[in-house]
Amino acid sequence: MQVEIWTDVNCPFCYLGKKRFNDALGQFEHADSVQVTHRSFELDPTVPAGTSGSVVEHLAHKYGRTLEQAADGERQLGAAAHDAGLAYVTTGRDYGNSFDMHRLLHWASALGRQEEMLDALYLANFADEAALFGSDERLIGVAVDAGFDEAAVADVVADKTRYADDVRRDEAQAEEFGVQGVPFYVFDRKYAVSGAQPVESFAQVLAQAWGDRPAAPQLLNTDGDACGPDGCAVPQ
Amino acid sequence: MQVEIWTDVNCPFCYLGKKRFNDALGQFEHADSVQVTHRSFELDPTVPAGTSGSVVEHLAHKYGRTLEQAADGERQLGAAAHDAGLAYVTTGRDYGNSFDMHRLLHWASALGRQEEMLDALYLANFADEAALFGSDERLIGVAVDAGFDEAAVADVVADKTRYADDVRRDEAQAEEFGVQGVPFYVFDRKYAVSGAQPVESFAQVLAQAWGDRPAAPQLLNTDGDACGPDGCAVPQ
Repeated sequence: MQVEIWTDVNCPFCYLGKKRFNDALGQFEHADSVQVTHRSFELDPTVPAGTSGSVVEHLAHKYGRTLEQAADGERQLGAAAHDAGLAYVTTGRDYGNSFDMHRLLHWASALGRQEEMLDALYLANFADEAALFGSDERLIGVAVDAGFDEAAVADVVADKTRYADDVRRDEAQAEEFGVQGVPFYVFDRKYAVSGAQPVESFAQVLAQAWGDRPAAPQLLNTDGDACGPDGCAVPQ
Repeated sequence: MQVEIWTDVNCPFCYLGKKRFNDALGQFEHADSVQVTHRSFELDPTVPAGTSGSVVEHLAHKYGRTLEQAADGERQLGAAAHDAGLAYVTTGRDYGNSFDMHRLLHWASALGRQEEMLDALYLANFADEAALFGSDERLIGVAVDAGFDEAAVADVVADKTRYADDVRRDEAQAEEFGVQGVPFYVFDRKYAVSGAQPVESFAQVLAQAWGDRPAAPQLLNTDGDACGPDGCAVPQ
């Protein structure tokens, strides 16, 4: 069974959702048959690349709140994260353009190491007060600390064309699915769930999607020339 | 729309089928929205790795035919290939274990260059009298001639664990789908076609699968905490 999760490193509920989904998956009896792929969704693609700003100031400005109201929202998020067993800093966090991170996640996926990259980026953003966005040096350092090769990471970060098409393809697919926000979970392209659900809810959806997973595609045509264990026979 | 094609480099009808499918895809109006992935199926995984034998002698022995009958079968395959516009040598071809080729195809896929690798392997096997199976040197040379990095190819060929799990996963999926022979085509995991169909038949299936492609997954749950363009709001 394939589970696709649209996500953004800027998104605290994606960070929470990953923990809760993984907790549900860890208890799922068919977990070994579940392939998880993280897909790209930029919460704010209009932020210029290479810049960074304070999350609290950004939220206050964007939603017409006071700094104190915005800081309070961060503290509520932090409490929810702590409840899920996650580290979360409520001060010092920044925000910014996540396109390069999405490209890195596709590169890591090609290496079979997407989970490691995503975990490293989430921790760097949510569990560390140091600025993450707007600094290629910090971004590369985070990936290197997670065990990725420094020169290879730097190459991907520097060449903005690499994996850009993959990011755009994910985003086009999200638009086709009508995704309005993230995290967004799709099970075998049959069922979907929006938002960071409680662990029990993820467990229910996993069970439902597993039970309803397509057994085999409908065979439309069997009369083509084919080779099998008994040789290549041209059907009559 | 996703098309998965189970294939083996040992399989002449896979070689023919690739040409016919691509001809159909080239005329398909939504070709830009079709993603093709080639999946692994070993026709004969019991052949020891590192060995090679004459195709004609192998076929004659396996099916209790005379060498002349087996050679005649090869000539018929060659005629079908020529009809499809493909080069095909009817003498000198060998056969063998294709596991390393499947691993290379997965590696090339991770680089976004699976088609190039598969085309190179097909041509090396079907359009060139030089032995291909049982010689790492020749295998590496074929990939290098196709533009792949020599050291990287040699690394993959030498380390038998690399992409082995991907090959096994493809084969397990084929077994789950009840695949008996290749080529085997699966459209969005909804429809399937067995064997190298005529171009017109592939065109019909592409049109049918496109028309019936799932528009969007069914949304089971929308009440999770999510972040969107308007911020992160905890639903009430």
